[in-house]
Amino acid sequence: MNRIKSLVFFIGLAALVHAQRALVFQSDFGLKDGAVSAMHGVAVGVSPRIPVFNLSHENTPFDIWEAAYRLKQTAAYWPAGTVFVSVVDPGVGTVRKSIVLQTKSGHFFVGPDNGTFTLVAEDLGIAGVREIDETRHRLKGSQRSYTFHGRDVYAFVGARLAAEAVSFDDVGPALPAKVVALPYERARVEGGVLVGNIPALDYQYGNVWTNLDEALFARLAPKFGDRFRVVIAREGKTVFQGEAPYVSSFGEVGKGAPLLYLNSLLNVSLALNVGDFAKTHGIGRGAAWSVRVEKAGAPAAGAAK
Amino acid sequence: MNRIKSLVFFIGLAALVHAQRALVFQSDFGLKDGAVSAMHGVAVGVSPRIPVFNLSHENTPFDIWEAAYRLKQTAAYWPAGTVFVSVVDPGVGTVRKSIVLQTKSGHFFVGPDNGTFTLVAEDLGIAGVREIDETRHRLKGSQRSYTFHGRDVYAFVGARLAAEAVSFDDVGPALPAKVVALPYERARVEGGVLVGNIPALDYQYGNVWTNLDEALFARLAPKFGDRFRVVIAREGKTVFQGEAPYVSSFGEVGKGAPLLYLNSLLNVSLALNVGDFAKTHGIGRGAAWSVRVEKAGAPAAGAAK
Amino acid sequence: MNRIKSLVFFIGLAALVHAQRALVFQSDFGLKDGAVSAMHGVAVGVSPRIPVFNLSHENTPFDIWEAAYRLKQTAAYWPAGTVFVSVVDPGVGTVRKSIVLQTKSGHFFVGPDNGTFTLVAEDLGIAGVREIDETRHRLKGSQRSYTFHGRDVYAFVGARLAAEAVSFDDVGPALPAKVVALPYERARVEGGVLVGNIPALDYQYGNVWTNLDEALFARLAPKFGDRFRVVIAREGKTVFQGEAPYVSSFGEVGKGAPLLYLNSLLNVSLALNVGDFAKTHGIGRGAAWSVRVEKAGAPAAGAAK
Repeated sequence: MNRIKSLVFFIGLAALVHAQRALVFQSDFGLKDGAVSAMHGVAVGVSPRIPVFNLSHENTPFDIWEAAYRLKQTAAYWPAGTVFVSVVDPGVGTVRKSIVLQTKSGHFFVGPDNGTFTLVAEDLGIAGVREIDETRHRLKGSQRSYTFHGRDVYAFVGARLAAEAVSFDDVGPALPAKVVALPYERARVEGGVLVGNIPALDYQYGNVWTNLDEALFARLAPKFGDRFRVVIAREGKTVFQGEAPYVSSFGEVGKGAPLLYLNSLLNVSLALNVGDFAKTHGIGRGAAWSVRVEKAGAPAAGAAK
Repeated sequence: MNRIKSLVFFIGLAALVHAQRALVFQSDFGLKDGAVSAMHGVAVGVSPRIPVFNLSHENTPFDIWEAAYRLKQTAAYWPAGTVFVSVVDPGVGTVRKSIVLQTKSGHFFVGPDNGTFTLVAEDLGIAGVREIDETRHRLKGSQRSYTFHGRDVYAFVGARLAAEAVSFDDVGPALPAKVVALPYERARVEGGVLVGNIPALDYQYGNVWTNLDEALFARLAPKFGDRFRVVIAREGKTVFQGEAPYVSSFGEVGKGAPLLYLNSLLNVSLALNVGDFAKTHGIGRGAAWSVRVEKAGAPAAGAAK
Repeated sequence: MNRIKSLVFFIGLAALVHAQRALVFQSDFGLKDGAVSAMHGVAVGVSPRIPVFNLSHENTPFDIWEAAYRLKQTAAYWPAGTVFVSVVDPGVGTVRKSIVLQTKSGHFFVGPDNGTFTLVAEDLGIAGVREIDETRHRLKGSQRSYTFHGRDVYAFVGARLAAEAVSFDDVGPALPAKVVALPYERARVEGGVLVGNIPALDYQYGNVWTNLDEALFARLAPKFGDRFRVVIAREGKTVFQGEAPYVSSFGEVGKGAPLLYLNSLLNVSLALNVGDFAKTHGIGRGAAWSVRVEKAGAPAAGAAK
């Protein structure tokens, strides 16, 4: 009898001590509406112990690229096991699969397979893809509601994964190990020139982020103070060309002057010191935007140290 | 001795395993301010274990109707026992009661009795209403602060209900089983015409939501592709009249064309495909807006399948 | 053996029952970006049990004063032990210390020592200041990322403090018991006139908040209905002068009329009944703004009761 009690204690404690998987939502619903809260409520109904978070709900409506980039920007900073529910879904009501992607990093991504998972699939690697069996996995009583997959299917399945009330394998049938991928300019070197894409703007400050990472940038053997020639184009048409020094701190150039730096993701980025590069030069972001970066001749006089 | 220890273990485990009640806040305070965070702090001070959520704090200032509708839109998706604290309170400092409403669904609603609970009381049913005894139930040391009921009384009482540190019955004296109700056009059928209200706009996309539910709509025997005649009025004056087909997917009509669909709450709604119905036709929402929907003669040629 | 098991149980239960410290973030990052979510992810990676909250991420970019005021406005409503991470950091990349401030109230404040902690240090008292030893305390693998202290150092250290994975003393070397302080007009009495600062506007409604507290106001022996003369200046230049009655409820004056009241922090404040005092009279807030309040002769005829 005492043994059984002890066992019960141990199991109870183990269940409580067991690290909980976080559940992270993103959407283009905004926060003035009740839609996000309804999704939260479904999650709490599955288990009140799930740590629930919002990535952002202010995604530009229907902008799948932006949603894809937000996941790339953040997922790696969350522990393995974290479940992301992403509902930017211009195709709701049309034919696209509802899936769960498990990455090699141990993260889960729940939502429509419409390109939202392009970048995390590339970065974190695909461990498996399952199609959600909506006949078995959806909020009770929601069968007749055909327009709010975020609440009735994705929040529900995501919460059950986070609470470990369902396993990845039990979500539905296995699909081939790939996801719908948006086309964009992959980062590469072409004859001494870095070529890449502008995945995002740091909209709060107007900085321009590229997908050229530190390793690629190192191919140009950059030193602080070196000047770089930058060309930015939209669908092949040049929108900006100019030079900027590579700096470790914005204050190394004068007010309003351009500069090149590595952002918090260690990607090549462009900014104006106390200014808005994107607005000043009319730069946007997304699959249509490309960038070319190469070293300018010798360090110009007066360059930052 | 061992028995007592075992008992302590069991009680401790039971307390921990016991499902926690979530605490959900809504207000018109916005999120630029510290007011919401002060309410959260009061709740955490009651118990750091309460799962705390925000419905929305971007309610239109002083708009009680919108707050009422947000509660209706979301409450049913939260598990029984969830405590909602709603602070949209144009009458703060004047005479209105501070109450807790318990619905038959087992949800709790804390705030001023100013009409905010009109719709959840109707939908979920009134199990009981208590007036908060502010002499016994308010944040310690807050007696002199007379303008922030949200923080000093509602957040405090809501958190104590969520943490089960106070029972519903102990909140204060019982009131009659009713709440202050806002007047609006109830959904009904009048001689083959559905008559109702526009409780909300799906502001992100500009869709117009009515309070005509699926059961009522069924009285018109709708089939996908059928056309409906719609009249929208503000205080009795017609603002829009026209026809729209009933569709299962927005893409079934051309870009910019009107359509009628059941929204995620299974209510009759109006939209333009890739457009903003509300802005295009100058439609608002609230108690003053009414809608009439009836079947248009025969299905028009070229209607969606 | 049974004793050891019992001990394990007790320790396990104690760890679980032990009140968790909340972790509260503020920044000027906005919520459209992934930056806040990356900080949350780092915190959850430290421990999924930490109750994580947002104060506000819509701080005016680079506005240290506003950040300082938000902390003052809210910290005291959170229980002792709460950890605040504040990342409004125009000087990122330049020389300013990264610190943890422990106040006498038992709260912790993590971030750059750039003036953000001016007001909480004054209000809550300084118990100790530690410089964060970034060589020992930063997110693993983040050594090369030099621009996102919020995520790599502050969120990480804040979460470890909240989870009690590091003690205050172990954060880094002790500094003198002071923080960088922004200059501003301290509240005081000068010959029957209250002199002070305008730390904040209640931006949602346009009310003007001063730092003149209830105790100071009492020096003027105010009674409801008394009229006060108010002068507001920016850098010494008068922007507004006029009279307003002291009221207990906005409705005691006519629509659009000015009034003086004690706000939720019990500070002297100015408003227009159903109007926007700040916008109407061009009032701002911050260190540059000062206010003078004195009693106007006799209560004017028609004053509020």
